[in-house]
Amino acid sequence: MIYPKIPLAQTVIQLYKKKGVKHIVISPGSRNAPLTIGFSNDNYFKCYSVVDERCAAFFALGIAQQLQEPTAVVCTSGSALLNYYPAVAEAFYSDIPLIVLSADRPKHLIGVGDGQTINQKNVFETHILYSANLKLDLKEENTNDVVEELPIFKNLEDKVETLLGLKKTIQEYNEEEIGKAINMTLLKKGPVHINAPFEEPLYDMVDELSVSPKSTTPENEPLQVDDAVLTACIKDWNAVSKKMVVVGVNYPNQIEQRWLDMLATDNSVIVFTETTSNIYHNDFFPSIDKLIAPLDDEGFNMLQPDILLTFGGLIVSKKIKAFLRKYKPQHHWHVDLKKANDTFFSLSNFIETTPNHFFSKFLPETKPVKSNYRLYWDGIKASRLIKHDNYLNNIEFCDLKAFDVILDSIPNNTILQLGNSSTVRYAQLFDLNKTLQVFCNRGTSGIDGCTSTAIGCAVANNKQTTLITGDLSFLYDSNALWNNYIPDNFRIIVINNQGGGIFRILPGHKNTENFDTYFETNHQLTAEHLCNMYGLKYESASDDMALKMMLKSFYSEDNQPKLLEVFTPKDLNDEILLEYFKYID
Amino acid sequence: MIYPKIPLAQTVIQLYKKKGVKHIVISPGSRNAPLTIGFSNDNYFKCYSVVDERCAAFFALGIAQQLQEPTAVVCTSGSALLNYYPAVAEAFYSDIPLIVLSADRPKHLIGVGDGQTINQKNVFETHILYSANLKLDLKEENTNDVVEELPIFKNLEDKVETLLGLKKTIQEYNEEEIGKAINMTLLKKGPVHINAPFEEPLYDMVDELSVSPKSTTPENEPLQVDDAVLTACIKDWNAVSKKMVVVGVNYPNQIEQRWLDMLATDNSVIVFTETTSNIYHNDFFPSIDKLIAPLDDEGFNMLQPDILLTFGGLIVSKKIKAFLRKYKPQHHWHVDLKKANDTFFSLSNFIETTPNHFFSKFLPETKPVKSNYRLYWDGIKASRLIKHDNYLNNIEFCDLKAFDVILDSIPNNTILQLGNSSTVRYAQLFDLNKTLQVFCNRGTSGIDGCTSTAIGCAVANNKQTTLITGDLSFLYDSNALWNNYIPDNFRIIVINNQGGGIFRILPGHKNTENFDTYFETNHQLTAEHLCNMYGLKYESASDDMALKMMLKSFYSEDNQPKLLEVFTPKDLNDEILLEYFKYID
Repeated sequence: MIYPKIPLAQTVIQLYKKKGVKHIVISPGSRNAPLTIGFSNDNYFKCYSVVDERCAAFFALGIAQQLQEPTAVVCTSGSALLNYYPAVAEAFYSDIPLIVLSADRPKHLIGVGDGQTINQKNVFETHILYSANLKLDLKEENTNDVVEELPIFKNLEDKVETLLGLKKTIQEYNEEEIGKAINMTLLKKGPVHINAPFEEPLYDMVDELSVSPKSTTPENEPLQVDDAVLTACIKDWNAVSKKMVVVGVNYPNQIEQRWLDMLATDNSVIVFTETTSNIYHNDFFPSIDKLIAPLDDEGFNMLQPDILLTFGGLIVSKKIKAFLRKYKPQHHWHVDLKKANDTFFSLSNFIETTPNHFFSKFLPETKPVKSNYRLYWDGIKASRLIKHDNYLNNIEFCDLKAFDVILDSIPNNTILQLGNSSTVRYAQLFDLNKTLQVFCNRGTSGIDGCTSTAIGCAVANNKQTTLITGDLSFLYDSNALWNNYIPDNFRIIVINNQGGGIFRILPGHKNTENFDTYFETNHQLTAEHLCNMYGLKYESASDDMALKMMLKSFYSEDNQPKLLEVFTPKDLNDEILLEYFKYID
Repeated sequence: MIYPKIPLAQTVIQLYKKKGVKHIVISPGSRNAPLTIGFSNDNYFKCYSVVDERCAAFFALGIAQQLQEPTAVVCTSGSALLNYYPAVAEAFYSDIPLIVLSADRPKHLIGVGDGQTINQKNVFETHILYSANLKLDLKEENTNDVVEELPIFKNLEDKVETLLGLKKTIQEYNEEEIGKAINMTLLKKGPVHINAPFEEPLYDMVDELSVSPKSTTPENEPLQVDDAVLTACIKDWNAVSKKMVVVGVNYPNQIEQRWLDMLATDNSVIVFTETTSNIYHNDFFPSIDKLIAPLDDEGFNMLQPDILLTFGGLIVSKKIKAFLRKYKPQHHWHVDLKKANDTFFSLSNFIETTPNHFFSKFLPETKPVKSNYRLYWDGIKASRLIKHDNYLNNIEFCDLKAFDVILDSIPNNTILQLGNSSTVRYAQLFDLNKTLQVFCNRGTSGIDGCTSTAIGCAVANNKQTTLITGDLSFLYDSNALWNNYIPDNFRIIVINNQGGGIFRILPGHKNTENFDTYFETNHQLTAEHLCNMYGLKYESASDDMALKMMLKSFYSEDNQPKLLEVFTPKDLNDEILLEYFKYID
């Protein structure tokens, strides 16, 4: 077996192995050579080489999102690290375990004008769960030296320990820091950063390990709900006749079916499921906007819940945010192991546990309350559905129509990745195929890494993955295709409306030169050249018939990944969408 | 005239105008709509629309680098801002006045789960000269409210002012913060960040300004050198017979010719000029590596200076860094208005002024010292030149040969932009055409924005700009070409050696699968599809003859920008280069 000679590199790699960090996305560089040598020569690891660090990090994010286990990116020193930031922020807000491992110069070479050198310590400070700033072990014998520069006293415990003279060796310090970082990402999900300084020579290898680092196990706190809180919740819930559950971003198969069924049998409960909630139930309410967009003051008053119960991540629907911020519930409870956003400015109760655990304590104690809340809105839902179908059958080809046709075509039991942001918003208007698993980068809602994330997802899964994305988000992340690991069954559908179509829907002043240039950023580009460059089969359609034709064979087996570009008329899309919301009322 | 309705947007825009910030690179978004409306409707500003923020910031950096005046980027809220970071770090280390202006949500919408929302305050903390965190002016009448949340006491003055109760209105606070940020970038060069929160409605316009912000003038401190320091310098300089001047990154026409001529007439002085120094003098020593690479211990001892005088920015040559770190001068003086890097671990004197001012006080007081220091190395220089030519005439086509032919072809009085990092290193081996102005992003030495920077440079200049870059840096920044402002006379030459050729020169283990995948990142991509996509004329060459042929008409006028891709043999390049250093001895 080949190992890097530098003990710190061995230490990082051995601890990754002990902690089960398997997927390593490496960007080329020299300072990180000891890490690259170590990871790529150990069959335990599945390594990937991706040059553009922005794409590399989103690719790793896609892997981590699917496997729900820590995935690592590794880069050299300097600005390379900064290109990870968009994906780090996405991981931070989407609770995805991404481990950033950056090689650095030794401290005495920082700030003296060396090349590829920046201030790497704590660079992601406001969007990271933990930053481990490792120390240089110059020579093997030096690893028994004590830590020269004491860490800043983070708390009293640290201070006492230091005053008592319980100093650590550099090796011990580094092992502890690496362990803390990985444990943090295991426990809390989200991104962590490990910064590892290396001195030259960087390329030396050895046959035997010179360190055997100790690993500590993260301690999961037992799940619990405070009895008093639970009792109060049960009492309040049983006392009111209008309860609303809203589910944001949520992994597939997270919530036990029996709890969903219990919620569905209570006529005083309405469950709104977002497209990214991965929850399907005939008696729930998907496509929130379709229901509430046409409502007036009277309708909103009728819909206003007494209790709002939320779980899952961020909410896509702007309309439900606006509605609940104005028509506030008396109580808003959010159930989550990690955090509660006060999305509706009425958060009264952060129940710090998993939804399943909460439901197991809570739902058996609740009783259905006599109410016509659900039944009334069931009627509206049914009427909207009929009007939706009518409208869709009578419009010209456009974004809305294209989504109708495309969403209907996606094969059962596959994965759907949605781009930001008009794509995920359009998808919310349709009742999706219940066998699909749906993902979208809603942490920061950026257009910056949708394709890379989808490719990471496709690589981590045996299931077919389809990405639907807009032309701007596709072009933004065009380097995503510079990736040697794209599976043949990966599919991309680009809805090309020649710019940021979403801006036509927003209240700006359309059809001025300024609008075209600075808001819509009108262009005539297509995905065809990129497909030729990176070996994707390219197909296109610009009307209903052609699109349906193309989709017939689009998902079938092929010897290369495929991209279907759907051209829609930019001047019609917004009118048809705005008219839709009027029509379905 | 049309203005955005929001007073804060008016304030920012009016202050930009008063301060002379003219070039505004806008990326699309909704939160920044008030700014986009304001800038794009005022003919004072030259606005550009660039979608990918990573490219937008490097493009702005290229403009600022050329004009040496503050250039602004403007983006929406969320991860958009993070994509600026690589260029911000480059601007920080290269002292380029880049103003980042980010729109933000109001404070009460941050951290509550809204889309496109991150912690934008101080996000570039370790790589920014100043961060102005503006406050929301909810309504016009509110701008007279006092600042609710007091800024952290940065210094005693702030503290006293606050204790005395001298509170400011929000409008005053914002004006001051914007002014501080712009003054900082004017005085100190380098990047600053202005974060501006806006509340909806964002698209409203008015005919008249509702604010008239006050602008403060930055105060330049008068140039001076401490008399005692000067006297000591003169004494030391006149006393020793081996003085070395090394010039790093330096703007063209910065140093008065008479000082250069004076340095050139002193036989006890050797002046090493890097390619990026933009200093040419027959009696100076360009292509440092060519001189020192073959030296042994004896040679180094002869070259070791008593006094080392440096000015300019970062040094490219690793060989001179290694040499001077080992063979330390007794004194190292660095002359700069802003900072001194202790690049050679022997900095004894930071002379805080401009080189011209220092030379005007210093050089007239020095006298030529009898020495054969310069003459000896002149002899070596001449011999290296002959061997260099001999070698170049007898090698197969390769990277080194391609650079020989290409550098010879660049038209007089044009601008040369060099990519990182093998490109700038190869260029250092040649004596460049003295009429060229040369630039390279050496602040962080990243491969991440070379093309965007070069395009910004080309846009800001009437002169023709040629970018020479490697295949990896070109592909990394491929979105640079997604830019509607590329002048027809812009030229790109891509040296395509099918991967990171520089890794073959480094001491790793070549020709293993791991090397090909994770270090060289071998690929078969070309620039042709990207050229077809973005409307550049594409040409290619893979031998000496073809290259010379192509170059004959490459720079001549055309109706579109052009790219010439030069294919070199990856397995030969490193051998020929390593052999070169032996041969020229």
